[in-house]
Amino acid sequence: MFKINDNYLKLPGSYLFSNIAKKVAAFQQANPDKEVIKLGIGDVTLPLAPKIIDTLHEAVDEMGKAETFHGYAPDLGYEFLRTAIADHDYKSRGCDISADEIFVSDGAKCDSGNIQEIFSVDNKIAVCDPVYPVYVDTNVMAGRTGTYDPKAETWSDVIYMPCTAENNFIPEFPRENPDLIYLCIPNNPTGTTITKSQLQEWVDYANKIGAVIIYDAAYEAYITEEDVPHTIFECEGARTCAIELRSFSKNAGFTGTRLGFTVIPKDLKCGDVSLHSLWARRHGTKYNGAPYIIQKAGLACYTEEGKAQLKEQVAYYMNNARVIKEGLSNAGFTVFGGVNAPYIWLKTPDKMTSWEFFDYLLEKGNIVGTPGSGFGPSGEGYFRLTAFGSHENTLRAMERIKNL
Amino acid sequence: MFKINDNYLKLPGSYLFSNIAKKVAAFQQANPDKEVIKLGIGDVTLPLAPKIIDTLHEAVDEMGKAETFHGYAPDLGYEFLRTAIADHDYKSRGCDISADEIFVSDGAKCDSGNIQEIFSVDNKIAVCDPVYPVYVDTNVMAGRTGTYDPKAETWSDVIYMPCTAENNFIPEFPRENPDLIYLCIPNNPTGTTITKSQLQEWVDYANKIGAVIIYDAAYEAYITEEDVPHTIFECEGARTCAIELRSFSKNAGFTGTRLGFTVIPKDLKCGDVSLHSLWARRHGTKYNGAPYIIQKAGLACYTEEGKAQLKEQVAYYMNNARVIKEGLSNAGFTVFGGVNAPYIWLKTPDKMTSWEFFDYLLEKGNIVGTPGSGFGPSGEGYFRLTAFGSHENTLRAMERIKNL
Repeated sequence: MFKINDNYLKLPGSYLFSNIAKKVAAFQQANPDKEVIKLGIGDVTLPLAPKIIDTLHEAVDEMGKAETFHGYAPDLGYEFLRTAIADHDYKSRGCDISADEIFVSDGAKCDSGNIQEIFSVDNKIAVCDPVYPVYVDTNVMAGRTGTYDPKAETWSDVIYMPCTAENNFIPEFPRENPDLIYLCIPNNPTGTTITKSQLQEWVDYANKIGAVIIYDAAYEAYITEEDVPHTIFECEGARTCAIELRSFSKNAGFTGTRLGFTVIPKDLKCGDVSLHSLWARRHGTKYNGAPYIIQKAGLACYTEEGKAQLKEQVAYYMNNARVIKEGLSNAGFTVFGGVNAPYIWLKTPDKMTSWEFFDYLLEKGNIVGTPGSGFGPSGEGYFRLTAFGSHENTLRAMERIKNL
Repeated sequence: MFKINDNYLKLPGSYLFSNIAKKVAAFQQANPDKEVIKLGIGDVTLPLAPKIIDTLHEAVDEMGKAETFHGYAPDLGYEFLRTAIADHDYKSRGCDISADEIFVSDGAKCDSGNIQEIFSVDNKIAVCDPVYPVYVDTNVMAGRTGTYDPKAETWSDVIYMPCTAENNFIPEFPRENPDLIYLCIPNNPTGTTITKSQLQEWVDYANKIGAVIIYDAAYEAYITEEDVPHTIFECEGARTCAIELRSFSKNAGFTGTRLGFTVIPKDLKCGDVSLHSLWARRHGTKYNGAPYIIQKAGLACYTEEGKAQLKEQVAYYMNNARVIKEGLSNAGFTVFGGVNAPYIWLKTPDKMTSWEFFDYLLEKGNIVGTPGSGFGPSGEGYFRLTAFGSHENTLRAMERIKNL
């Protein structure tokens, strides 16, 4: 008689955003006349940029002719895209990353969920708290997290690094040595970030204790301040301790188009075994490449025209971030983030819990945000709004908040 | 100090098709004047059908306008596609499968590699021998297969079901009860198939012993004979024991476009837990949906125009299959498959091993095929050719084989 992977049964409730979607659907069904503004999930709203649309059309035409048709993609992604990434995202910043250290995928969510698979089940993970739920949940599914304490909302075998207003949202080195350290910078959900020298300390720490940093840089396009690292490979020594996850979702609006990549330097090893070879094996065995037309669209993001158009899109969202930050501050809220990231992290008023504030904002303001506690226990008492709405909706949302 | 998942190190050599690609690249570099005909990997060569191209263009245009832009897709796939699949692939055949039992993905390779994850590591798998390598390799990575015997080329904890000319390529119930049974029908690599009543026996067996059949029906569009099942859900009782994997790669030429789906009936349970709920959780946590434009292209496959065009493509490849089958028979080879599948499975001549014949065919005929032993020990002495080449190349390959 077959048995299931019962680690799945340890997961408390279902995935945060599915829960929110259900709550919103129920509210809309009960209140069909109310117009709900969604500033919850980090989904973009601007259409794909013209250069990307043109490139997609060209690539579709290629797929319609025998001479230019493309079947199975190379395991690790097309050379044209990997080279563009290496040149524009790394070499241009003086980072020593080559095209064959880049693995093209269908997005950073999949990669951040799958990457744990190449590590031992005995490894101990450290995560910031609050944190993007996928990091923890996928380690639960793999049986790496011990038992769940429903009261504390923590796992016995996970090292939590609280990031709150008290420590300026900068994680501190944990007392116990972790094997895998997840860092998302600029941070989802708090919208905050750290400086390059602070990140260098983490790289030094990881090299010293023999840990791997899984560095999620999905939001690097939103960095506006000088001293914030765009990639962990700006730090010395990162080639022997870091894996970087990147996405086209937020800088190019690919949430529904699906493209991302993972960087594993060949110097990152456990004894004689390079993690690069393990991930290559996983890609070759369990994955079949991102669609050709989508990889071509990815390439368009690196053209001069594409870069200029995407810069405008990012500026549009960052203008929203400014509006939200100012609107909330003026309404008396305590607000963080929103300067180097499209997320604004606010303290809930009147000692409301995060979910109480979620319900309050949905019912009174018809605005959807994300409860901070959904990202971990230290997110309790906080709330996330995103800058990815339309500018009109963002202005209207702030008007509603002003009048709450 | 971090550790790796050392199950990966147990994998002997690298993935079959990567190996072949390397051998072919080396041959072409050494013989730049020789024109190599590739009938090895199961990759299609016809361009996407006109209806699919038109639909892709329309969907790309939708992505370029704010009013019709699509961000994150629903976790389990767009309703429009899931409904079309349920109607055309199941209800039209009298099979009781509903849209919400269908999970849209980026292809059957990923699904067939990932599906094992929702089962216990203690479960024992049974596979046909020869077999699509992904089934076994992904179970090795998960630690489910015991130790490898390099001489026998088998794993201690895998149940092998030999499928050779001796048993007409029909697997027999194993002596030891398996928990998970992988069946691929019509079969890759042998190109053979089984009748509906033979499949019914497998369904009855699985229900009796409490096993799950993971049924890969990626080649169902190539069925030409009446009595061959198009889906396992044609069999009575399959809803309590079967998961079906399907692909758009072979029936619609999507190898480089990436779309597939998995069907998990809600009646398939382990105690109170439905496998449907586990797979839904995995999708929601580790996956972010197939691109909107690709899901629209999938929908186009189910329109009258799309269906007619895809039928022509399948007929084109099956004409190739006939040419190969006849060409090989006339050249004195013993040949199987090619009637309900795009694969021809031949016995190597003169007691050559599969890899000896691979080298011989590459060097003397400049034709690439796939060594049968790459699919498992019982594939030794066999060789696979595919019907996915162009018709011209297929004819030329047979001319070359005639003159060997």
